[in-house]
Amino acid sequence: MLKDELQQWLKSLQDEICSGLEEIDTVSKFTEEIWTREEGGGGRTRVIQDGSVFEKGGVNFSAVFGNTPDFLKHSKEHSVTSSHVGDNFFATGISIVIHPFSPLVPIIHMNIRYFEMDNGIAWLGGGIDLTPIYVDEAEARFFHGELKKLCNQFNPDYYPRFKKWADEYFFIPHRNETRGIGGIFFDRIKINPVNPDPSILEFWKRVGKLFLPVYKAIIQPKIKLPFTEEQKKFQLIRRGRYVEFNLVYDKGTRFGLETNGRVESILMSLPKHVSWQYNFSPKTNTPEFETLNRLRVGTDW
Amino acid sequence: MLKDELQQWLKSLQDEICSGLEEIDTVSKFTEEIWTREEGGGGRTRVIQDGSVFEKGGVNFSAVFGNTPDFLKHSKEHSVTSSHVGDNFFATGISIVIHPFSPLVPIIHMNIRYFEMDNGIAWLGGGIDLTPIYVDEAEARFFHGELKKLCNQFNPDYYPRFKKWADEYFFIPHRNETRGIGGIFFDRIKINPVNPDPSILEFWKRVGKLFLPVYKAIIQPKIKLPFTEEQKKFQLIRRGRYVEFNLVYDKGTRFGLETNGRVESILMSLPKHVSWQYNFSPKTNTPEFETLNRLRVGTDW
Repeated sequence: MLKDELQQWLKSLQDEICSGLEEIDTVSKFTEEIWTREEGGGGRTRVIQDGSVFEKGGVNFSAVFGNTPDFLKHSKEHSVTSSHVGDNFFATGISIVIHPFSPLVPIIHMNIRYFEMDNGIAWLGGGIDLTPIYVDEAEARFFHGELKKLCNQFNPDYYPRFKKWADEYFFIPHRNETRGIGGIFFDRIKINPVNPDPSILEFWKRVGKLFLPVYKAIIQPKIKLPFTEEQKKFQLIRRGRYVEFNLVYDKGTRFGLETNGRVESILMSLPKHVSWQYNFSPKTNTPEFETLNRLRVGTDW
Repeated sequence: MLKDELQQWLKSLQDEICSGLEEIDTVSKFTEEIWTREEGGGGRTRVIQDGSVFEKGGVNFSAVFGNTPDFLKHSKEHSVTSSHVGDNFFATGISIVIHPFSPLVPIIHMNIRYFEMDNGIAWLGGGIDLTPIYVDEAEARFFHGELKKLCNQFNPDYYPRFKKWADEYFFIPHRNETRGIGGIFFDRIKINPVNPDPSILEFWKRVGKLFLPVYKAIIQPKIKLPFTEEQKKFQLIRRGRYVEFNLVYDKGTRFGLETNGRVESILMSLPKHVSWQYNFSPKTNTPEFETLNRLRVGTDW
């Protein structure tokens, strides 16, 4: 069955990504917690902390099932009406958030997920987005270029559509800022679980596979660069915005907290050290000022 | 008019509290921002940062007015139906959150607010609660004792009712922990704006007046006590829970963010330095362990 196949595939991807990140870090290793969920299913949470490159990072796999939560039944998003919602659901996915120690290395997030209900309706969702502390134009172009290249191998509509979706999703209204430079985001892409379209499934897998090589390429040139106290301070403040997004707006986080998920696995996305300074506002023409000015919806990198 | 009188009274209280806190700190002074709100009204935000006692603290006054927000019109809380809601509202209040530098000195929060609508319906609300990093039984007894004493001067039902309300309000469901040792909390206590009951008004003012002497009494014996790195680390983690409560559950914060309030005034409640450590769990019988075990709803201090 598709759901079994995808679970297995996601677990190997988790192994592959964790090994790859450990190779980059060289010092710290992932610790693993296997957890089960009372209502059905469970997961494999892997976290790396206090490494030479990664201050805190999580690579979570989960596969949960049970009665479809009420809020999904009443959701009107993407024209899903209650008649389309089955009584029982199954969901599996990988969710990654990496907070590097250096303020010159961007935070990255990747998630791919599969959701099916016992009425035969199933969806794929996913995304990958980058949150540099300091916007680096070349890096942003490279990152979006790789995403575009991948998308275009499948459908020329994917990149513009999913890039826009990420811009809208990873937005912090009360700051009027995007969380970072965006990436791609897609949700509720219908798939037939009995006879799945191989192209959409392959695209989804390739998004998962893209994470490691792309992040490696972004990290490598910056890993040894020296940074200042000033840059470190700005990183802690930018991380505060990340926390604001995740706790106030992120649907995955709120879904997890509201459905009695494993708290430590959900909140592994929060950085280790964070700071809120009242009325922080960088001086004009500083790199900090330039970065905040670049965090706008609809930027064509 | 009552609303004008209360505004003036709140402003003097703000002055009094800021002076009192500056006297305790001896090093840092409050900075002030006067802000206006496009839709009507504004406020006077005062923040103290990087003092000898206070790492970050805010004492906010605001008085805002305009069209009654939609979500209030649809609120069913405390049997308020839409027929009770006027088209225009006025709200004024003081909101205080203090984050001391020492992990031995508790975080404190106090808020009193007055809300009226143009249909003649008006409410008082308020509360004061304490979030020690380490629970100190004597301190908790003193704090609740002072609140009880004040309540009992007005109505023997107040303390048990408002103490329970605070327990339920300052609760973090996903952690199954209270934010701290609670205090009192009350909301939507009806008052006639033309001919206000002097007793309820006096009670409300006395809650505001209680803040400074009670906090002073709590701080003084602890101000010079030495603390360890371990205690400081635990403080940063406990502050993380404070952030989780404020961003995920606190109605005031969400109300502010959703009604386009002044972000820096709303989020002044967030501590300066915060930490999230994956899977933090203190060893049995440590003071950290004991504290987390004491953060339960319904504790009779």
